[in-house]
Amino acid sequence: MRIRGGREIRGELQGYDLHMNLVLDNAEEMVSDGENIPLGTVVLRGDNVVYISP
Amino acid sequence: MRIRGGREIRGELQGYDLHMNLVLDNAEEMVSDGENIPLGTVVLRGDNVVYISP
Amino acid sequence: MRIRGGREIRGELQGYDLHMNLVLDNAEEMVSDGENIPLGTVVLRGDNVVYISP
Amino acid sequence: MRIRGGREIRGELQGYDLHMNLVLDNAEEMVSDGENIPLGTVVLRGDNVVYISP
Amino acid sequence: MRIRGGREIRGELQGYDLHMNLVLDNAEEMVSDGENIPLGTVVLRGDNVVYISP
Amino acid sequence: MRIRGGREIRGELQGYDLHMNLVLDNAEEMVSDGENIPLGTVVLRGDNVVYISP
Amino acid sequence: MRIRGGREIRGELQGYDLHMNLVLDNAEEMVSDGENIPLGTVVLRGDNVVYISP
Repeated sequence: MRIRGGREIRGELQGYDLHMNLVLDNAEEMVSDGENIPLGTVVLRGDNVVYISP
Repeated sequence: MRIRGGREIRGELQGYDLHMNLVLDNAEEMVSDGENIPLGTVVLRGDNVVYISP
Repeated sequence: MRIRGGREIRGELQGYDLHMNLVLDNAEEMVSDGENIPLGTVVLRGDNVVYISP
Repeated sequence: MRIRGGREIRGELQGYDLHMNLVLDNAEEMVSDGENIPLGTVVLRGDNVVYISP
Repeated sequence: MRIRGGREIRGELQGYDLHMNLVLDNAEEMVSDGENIPLGTVVLRGDNVVYISP
Repeated sequence: MRIRGGREIRGELQGYDLHMNLVLDNAEEMVSDGENIPLGTVVLRGDNVVYISP
Repeated sequence: MRIRGGREIRGELQGYDLHMNLVLDNAEEMVSDGENIPLGTVVLRGDNVVYISP
C-alpha cells in the first residue's frame, strides 16, 4: 500500500479496524532503487495510508 | 481524482462512505510523463482526496 | 476558489454541506501560465478549501 | 489577517462562526511586491487562519 | 509565543479559551533581522501555537 | 523533549493534561550549535510533542 | 518504530493506549550514519507513529 511521503509498504493483511489501522505480516518497505527492507509483522497507523491495493 | 501531493488516480468508482473513502476498480496512478501505473482494485482514504471529477 | 497548495479552481456552485464540501459544475483548474484544465463536474473536499470568492 | 502559507488577506469582517470561518467584504490578497489581488466577498475557512488583526 | 512555521509573536495576553485561542494587545511579530511588525490587537488561533512563554 | 520541526526543548515538568499539553519551568530551547535559548516557564501545546524523555 | 519525518526509534515497549501513545524503555533514536542517540524511557505521541515493527 502507498503511505504518505511517497513510501510504499507491502505485506499480508492480517487485520484492520475502522481507522484503517492495519496489521501486516512479512511486511517490506519498497525502496525506489529496488532493494526492499524487510520489516516482519508491522502495525501501521491508518492516518498514514493513502491507498491500499492488492 | 486528484489526491494530495499532486498525484492523480483514475478508476471505476465501486463504492464510497461518508468520509469520502473510495473503492475503485481498474485504478491507475497517472504519471506526468504519460506512463500510468496500474493498481487494480484500491481502497483510497478519504482525507487524501482533493477533488473527484468524472 | 483557492485551495491548499496554491491551486485555484473555478466553477458553478451546485451544492455544499457543513464541512464546505462543494459540488461544482463546469469546473476548471486555473494554471499560472494561463491555460486552464477543464474538469467537468467535481466534488471538492472541504478541508482543502482556503477561501471561496465569486 | 494572516493565513497559512505566509499569505495575508484583508477585508471588512461581515460575519464569523465558532470555527473562525469568516465572511469578508471587499477582500484583497496582499502580495509581497505591493500589488494586491481584489477578491470581492469571500468565505474563508477557519482552519487556515493564523491570526486576525485590525 | 512561538507559532508554527518558525514565527514568533509577542503581546499582552488579554484572554484565551480551551483551544488555546488567544487575544493579545499591542502584539508584534518578531522578525529575525530585528525589525518587528506591530499588529495591534490580534486573535490568534490556538492550533498554530507551539508554546507560550512570558 | 522533542517537538515537531526538529526542535528540542528541556525543562522541569510542572504539569500536563490529557492532550499532552505541558507546563515546564526553567525551559530552554536547545540549538544545534550548542547555544541554548532560555524561555522561563512555558506552556507547550501537546500536538507539537513528538516524544518526552527525561 | 518509524515516526514521521523519516526518523526511527527503537526500545522495549512498556505500554500503549488507544491513540497509539507508547511508553518505551531504553529507547534509542536511530541515526542514518549509524551512531544512535540513547533516550532512556520515552513517552511517544501516537500521532507521530507511522508503523511499529519488532
